[in-house]
Amino acid sequence: MIIENINIAPEKKNVCLSAYIRDGGDLGGVKRPAVIVLPGGGYMACAPQEGKPVALRFAAMGYHSFVLKYSTLFSVFPSKPDLSRANPGVHYPGPLEDLGRAIIAIRENAERWSVDPDKIILCGFSAGAHLAAMYATHWNRPELSYALGAGTNLLRPSACILCYGVFDLETILDLNNEYKELFSTFTYALCGKKALSEEEMIKFSPVKHVGNHMPPSFIWATAEDKMVPCANSVNMALAMAEKNIPYELHIFEKGRHGLSLADESSAVTAEEINPHVANWVSLAEGWLKKRFSPGPQDM
Amino acid sequence: MIIENINIAPEKKNVCLSAYIRDGGDLGGVKRPAVIVLPGGGYMACAPQEGKPVALRFAAMGYHSFVLKYSTLFSVFPSKPDLSRANPGVHYPGPLEDLGRAIIAIRENAERWSVDPDKIILCGFSAGAHLAAMYATHWNRPELSYALGAGTNLLRPSACILCYGVFDLETILDLNNEYKELFSTFTYALCGKKALSEEEMIKFSPVKHVGNHMPPSFIWATAEDKMVPCANSVNMALAMAEKNIPYELHIFEKGRHGLSLADESSAVTAEEINPHVANWVSLAEGWLKKRFSPGPQDM
Repeated sequence: MIIENINIAPEKKNVCLSAYIRDGGDLGGVKRPAVIVLPGGGYMACAPQEGKPVALRFAAMGYHSFVLKYSTLFSVFPSKPDLSRANPGVHYPGPLEDLGRAIIAIRENAERWSVDPDKIILCGFSAGAHLAAMYATHWNRPELSYALGAGTNLLRPSACILCYGVFDLETILDLNNEYKELFSTFTYALCGKKALSEEEMIKFSPVKHVGNHMPPSFIWATAEDKMVPCANSVNMALAMAEKNIPYELHIFEKGRHGLSLADESSAVTAEEINPHVANWVSLAEGWLKKRFSPGPQDM
Repeated sequence: MIIENINIAPEKKNVCLSAYIRDGGDLGGVKRPAVIVLPGGGYMACAPQEGKPVALRFAAMGYHSFVLKYSTLFSVFPSKPDLSRANPGVHYPGPLEDLGRAIIAIRENAERWSVDPDKIILCGFSAGAHLAAMYATHWNRPELSYALGAGTNLLRPSACILCYGVFDLETILDLNNEYKELFSTFTYALCGKKALSEEEMIKFSPVKHVGNHMPPSFIWATAEDKMVPCANSVNMALAMAEKNIPYELHIFEKGRHGLSLADESSAVTAEEINPHVANWVSLAEGWLKKRFSPGPQDM
């Protein structure tokens, strides 16, 4: 495996694209798809257990994989977040631009890495799934093209895998106070405010911006998730259904927020191992194969 | 395996409970759960591919399994349904009473068959899932107890597996004409009418009757289902979430209505084989194990 760290945003010292490129090149003459893993962490920092272990799993499946450390408030999770010391360059559209630059970098290196530039998959967790879904619904906006100096042909994503994500900020109104406090950090990261107006709630809710430009998506969450209600995932599926965009939705009964791969490769505590929830990985693999494998398509 | 056909409703010649009892008795001193399979068929008849192959699969997993042929309009699917020649005894609460009698029969034979009477699982497909969900939301009604001469302790179900079911009749209003015509046979079976009043729509929509008496349920469907929109399954999950009843929901992207086990054991045509959708079986098995297996519970 070839591992490279690419500084896609020289002015932002925390932002980095780590590439895990399968050596041995292509797959029987066919270039391989790329998966960009977007860890969660509430835009406070990027959670390590939702980064490299996930990229290595996709690499094992035959994908070139990448982890994007996008703009977050802090470089590592602070023991007590002090917003007065937060990175000011984090607010939207910062993270969208980071992801756009990552996709451009992959397309620019497609020949060298043997990546199929028409098969670029975003795999986001929690806040990373929010970023993936914001990107999937905003990649064709002229302001993004203008900021990045790139046409939409360089920016288009091919599919999303959205893991226990934040997609509909209205669902947050139902949270208990402990999680609401955490959520105010999230909204501060989005736009520098600890509470959002109704207009901003809509602006930062990907469910409100689903259109025909959104790529097919595989969505999963757990019904027991107290931090990000699984209504986010259900509402995303409903919004996609309404626009006739292909989706797949899995809501597992048990399991708390942030399970990542839900097995020994990603778990930080024993409670994060859940063999039933871990089925999402093989379900996502099957779903991706139907779209992107050059092998027989019998499903 | 011990196979018995039990005539649970002597006055209805089409109704029959087929038992597939694992011989060798119990599971290390612990009685086994029972699964009652309810085939679909729009209440016109019971679809064979959603009956015996499913029961045999659950038997292979270690369950005692049963297929209930409940009241339907015809004994076998007619080439052209002629409602004037339909069985008049089919209408609700007929099918509910059939299922209640099946559950009573299993509890009455629990000792002989080594069934755990506290672990009776309903697994319904399409109209059979409608019946399972109607039962799961109505089993505690006094009129059912009265009709069957049995207390609720004999009638209580322990869990449901609801496969591409009809749960919310409002979703049917969006169907195209071909399926609407089919659906009028369904409503005729329910209550002898080809079109329902708003009140009847509610009466026969299990989503409207979800309460704390409903048991935990595993729900799945395919997003491409044109005959029974997967909104039925999503709305059932939402109704259960609102009442804090445990549920699990899987919406697969591809696959038409009526896939049953989606493999060679149930398929009638090659199009009914879909390895990705077939994952529902192992997902349901994992979900059931967490609740009903006497083995270690690490998930």
